[in-house]
Amino acid sequence: MKDPNPIDKLIDLMARLPGLGPRSARRAVLYLIRKRGQLLHPLAEAMAEVAATARECLNCGNVASADICPICTNDSRQNGILCVVEDVADLWAMERSGVFRGRYHVLGGTLSALDGIGPEELRIPRLKDRLSTERVTEVILALNATIDGQTTAHYIADQLEGRVELTSLAQGVPIGGELDYLDDGTITAALNARKRL
Amino acid sequence: MKDPNPIDKLIDLMARLPGLGPRSARRAVLYLIRKRGQLLHPLAEAMAEVAATARECLNCGNVASADICPICTNDSRQNGILCVVEDVADLWAMERSGVFRGRYHVLGGTLSALDGIGPEELRIPRLKDRLSTERVTEVILALNATIDGQTTAHYIADQLEGRVELTSLAQGVPIGGELDYLDDGTITAALNARKRL
Ligand SMILES: [Zn+2]
Ligand SMILES: [Zn+2]
Repeated sequence: MKDPNPIDKLIDLMARLPGLGPRSARRAVLYLIRKRGQLLHPLAEAMAEVAATARECLNCGNVASADICPICTNDSRQNGILCVVEDVADLWAMERSGVFRGRYHVLGGTLSALDGIGPEELRIPRLKDRLSTERVTEVILALNATIDGQTTAHYIADQLEGRVELTSLAQGVPIGGELDYLDDGTITAALNARKRL
Repeated sequence: MKDPNPIDKLIDLMARLPGLGPRSARRAVLYLIRKRGQLLHPLAEAMAEVAATARECLNCGNVASADICPICTNDSRQNGILCVVEDVADLWAMERSGVFRGRYHVLGGTLSALDGIGPEELRIPRLKDRLSTERVTEVILALNATIDGQTTAHYIADQLEGRVELTSLAQGVPIGGELDYLDDGTITAALNARKRL
């Protein structure tokens, strides 16, 4: 027997993407074959490039194609104010609102006794380091309004208390809501009305 | 300026796939970066291979990685019986039912006066050629139960009348329904109860 048909192999792999089942994977692959020059070739190249270059920013935990991400290296962003988020999808959601011009710190999850995730499994030690080295004056705790998110926010607030001004996103984040599902206007309102803890 | 960030480029390309918007494209790309070894690398390679090899089968119009597709070259399939479908997604839907063991002919669409699609834009001339060269005794017109699909089926029936036995899928295909959305059992029932035109 030869290798499995390359088209079948591609369908199987595509079906493993979140949001695509077997049927939509088949439709996507047929579409890709029809748009070979405009879409399939560029997509294959973009995937190979991301596979070869993507890594976590050593400073903030954002995904990047270099050791330090474009936000951390961008001179026009404001120093001294850190926005702490759970994951990169939340960082991207904040960026889409366009209203925050400081730096980020991506925890990489939330504290969870059940799943055995403590401060060392997240980027909490690194956050403490950054307070000193980057002369941070304000930390915005932009965690999801879930139980785990708020538990994690309280833990970090306890740890940093007295060292820095702590704020949290205020109005607009609905109970149980996740940042990545909010519209940009809601994120803007919540950021502008952030309150001191 | 350098090239745009490879991750942003990948998100833009993924968002152009059917069934994925910008948000699900972002989620898919984050997932791919996390599953770099298991999914992103293999997917990049599978896409490059399909981009390099995919073409239309010269005989039946199926997509394939060779000039003639695996169904046309498969010795264990039955000769002399052709199933005519609108597009490759319909061929795949028929194959999933597993009940048809003959050969296919993919038209590549339906006749449409509005869109200027006549018999020459489809694979209708090639279908007539195959009747002679492959000693076809039965043609199953498995077109969608849409107006365009049925118009096309009638046109083909007129053209082939007297040269071959013509059948169509019978019970089970709902009015306005498209093959690719039917479950396998419905396709099996429709095929087994096919009626002479
Ligand atoms: Zn960074
Ligand atoms: Zn073929």
